[in-house]
Amino acid sequence: MNVQFIIIGDEILSGRTQDINTKFLGGFLLKQGHKLTKVITIGDDPKTMRETFLQATSEAQLVLTSGGVGPTLDDLTKKISAETFGKKLVESKAAEIVVIDNYLRFGREWNQKNFYHVFPEDYVPVPNPCGLAPGLLYFDQKKNFAIAHAPGVPREFYEMVQTQILPLAEKLLGANTTPTKQFCVRTHGVPEETIFFKLCPDLWQELEKFGKVSSLPHVVGVDIIITYDAKIFPTADADLRNIFLQTPLLPNIWHWGNESLPEIILQKATKKNITIGFAESCTGGLTSSRLTDLPGSSQIFKGSVVAYANELKINLLGVKENTLNKFGAVSTECALEMAVGAQKNLGVDLAISFTGIAGPTGGTTEKPVGAVCIGWAFNKNSGAEKFEFKGDRLKLKERFSERGLLKILELLN
Amino acid sequence: MNVQFIIIGDEILSGRTQDINTKFLGGFLLKQGHKLTKVITIGDDPKTMRETFLQATSEAQLVLTSGGVGPTLDDLTKKISAETFGKKLVESKAAEIVVIDNYLRFGREWNQKNFYHVFPEDYVPVPNPCGLAPGLLYFDQKKNFAIAHAPGVPREFYEMVQTQILPLAEKLLGANTTPTKQFCVRTHGVPEETIFFKLCPDLWQELEKFGKVSSLPHVVGVDIIITYDAKIFPTADADLRNIFLQTPLLPNIWHWGNESLPEIILQKATKKNITIGFAESCTGGLTSSRLTDLPGSSQIFKGSVVAYANELKINLLGVKENTLNKFGAVSTECALEMAVGAQKNLGVDLAISFTGIAGPTGGTTEKPVGAVCIGWAFNKNSGAEKFEFKGDRLKLKERFSERGLLKILELLN
Repeated sequence: MNVQFIIIGDEILSGRTQDINTKFLGGFLLKQGHKLTKVITIGDDPKTMRETFLQATSEAQLVLTSGGVGPTLDDLTKKISAETFGKKLVESKAAEIVVIDNYLRFGREWNQKNFYHVFPEDYVPVPNPCGLAPGLLYFDQKKNFAIAHAPGVPREFYEMVQTQILPLAEKLLGANTTPTKQFCVRTHGVPEETIFFKLCPDLWQELEKFGKVSSLPHVVGVDIIITYDAKIFPTADADLRNIFLQTPLLPNIWHWGNESLPEIILQKATKKNITIGFAESCTGGLTSSRLTDLPGSSQIFKGSVVAYANELKINLLGVKENTLNKFGAVSTECALEMAVGAQKNLGVDLAISFTGIAGPTGGTTEKPVGAVCIGWAFNKNSGAEKFEFKGDRLKLKERFSERGLLKILELLN
Repeated sequence: MNVQFIIIGDEILSGRTQDINTKFLGGFLLKQGHKLTKVITIGDDPKTMRETFLQATSEAQLVLTSGGVGPTLDDLTKKISAETFGKKLVESKAAEIVVIDNYLRFGREWNQKNFYHVFPEDYVPVPNPCGLAPGLLYFDQKKNFAIAHAPGVPREFYEMVQTQILPLAEKLLGANTTPTKQFCVRTHGVPEETIFFKLCPDLWQELEKFGKVSSLPHVVGVDIIITYDAKIFPTADADLRNIFLQTPLLPNIWHWGNESLPEIILQKATKKNITIGFAESCTGGLTSSRLTDLPGSSQIFKGSVVAYANELKINLLGVKENTLNKFGAVSTECALEMAVGAQKNLGVDLAISFTGIAGPTGGTTEKPVGAVCIGWAFNKNSGAEKFEFKGDRLKLKERFSERGLLKILELLN
């Protein structure tokens, strides 16, 4: 099933809000055997909304929209959708039931002033498991398309799409799912050009025999993804793996699969019963936060010291004042002491430390913005390495953090 | 100037990568007096690319695209753009100069294999201050539109758009900027419906006299934004402020302006010379990381203890074992001791602590998922409060963190 997604909201176009629904929707549809083919973000302007609704329903079988279903006067979706498909707004008993139910779930009483019960005729009111505003779905049997309107709030959008809209749309449209699968190889340390022009000049053509190839540069390396039809290539996973095993890229492959570094680390460390902690200076808590984004991380993560100020490196991590004076905070010497101190003071099996310069100021010729020292202490071993990355402050924090996690993976393997 | 943005990339549609260029572009264009009117995300499919390029250039004066300008075989933008606007690909000396210069900036030598010097005739090669692949700009004088192709990598995209593409496009198109301004009021603690149906039923209509009104629910509250023409309403800022000063919403307003909580805190604390630190349990380092995302945060932020495990709450923050046994880790008693301990051990003027249940598991009837205790210690005063929020794990971490930052703002004011 081809799906298009229309995001309605001036707040996205003015840069005020970051859309995150697309990332969820794209991944979810792929897993369900459907394909997100286009995403259009527009403001809440009636004319543009009408034109976009019409074009999208003429191009895709299922059109999802987000935004504009709330109670305030800038919430136009219901009205414009009804106009576009020639339906009247009427007082709907079916909508009322769904709305009262939404409110009950929050222990609240519904106030008719928001007009949630005024609904386009022939539209299906969609329950909102995580919020108050009902969703809407309109199915045009003759033209065989469906358009569904969900709230923009991510949690409400996710839940409504997953549990209500997609199952209903699949049934109404009699949709066939195609068994598209993705094979993903994650590498680090070699730029895209080096991989495809120097190391493996014929790799792309070989991979292309299976399906669509994408090369995706990331914070610490390049992901290579092959999207293939599992019916035509039932053994593609093994076949593709074999191809990569014979390339000079092999030492740079750190993962076969889609999981993120924190996910892989959580799996491996849980299995091996290893506890982890961090000493974070330049990363400012990012690494700890990323690991604790995952449910179950408390199994392996005990805690961290975020030591931005040098005095905390001394007081909480046991870095020697002499080390700071002699080598500076951004040194492998300091990183090593931070990691060893964190291992001890946090009482963990494995500690990683970060000390570097995230910029934009504070760099020198010797220690430029992007320089980072990463220390590690694992059981009775320890060490530290220096790296240099490029990027702005946020990107550098991310790269530093990712490189430290990669070090954990190396230690766990 | 009306601007449309086309994102080319299967990786966005498959949910593999999160687009963040739109957020930058929308905010940047608004500041420059232009307007982002539509964003279209498509896959790297030639037919869709052609159709989208044509439609966008017929609707907008300036069309920007991102993605597909790199060296690998899935990078189709240059070829398809040339075809769409009827231009031949030729070996271009001008492009070669730009490319060699891009490589020189990285201390690298250019390898002709990537065909960066093969360029559509009549297109302007655009320098890439942060990367290797050149951008492209095509100006159609007759139809008075320009289309520019930039890389998708955020840092390269930002820099190229800001320093190269927009100045050039403004010159070529003789663009007029309209002095659109935004007035923003940030509130907390009252839902959208309560504001506009109960507290201030006439507010919306009053605000609408100045321009477009948007209501934007956020992690801890609602932002109300009025976009107005500064030529027509030169005193709008003061007038709008006056309207809000007379509403019952006043106690819930925590900021007049667009700044984020971390930004406001950094400004105020720097001015007052107050140092800050955190004791983070359920937020896992997120609050520290958000504050250190800001350049200059080292002026006020000394560090944090991320104490996920109870033993670290005891060992690093001085929480009494008895407190944990008697009240549990998620209690105002524990939060208070965490904050006081953090203030002491981190040596800061102001410490905030977080202990709660981010889920998805671990909740009880008494302490459900979403419950959080936030403690504070500021100079010689201290205290703790309990809150309950809704959301999934990531959203809860964000809400907890934001509520703690709001507490800092209350203490600083």
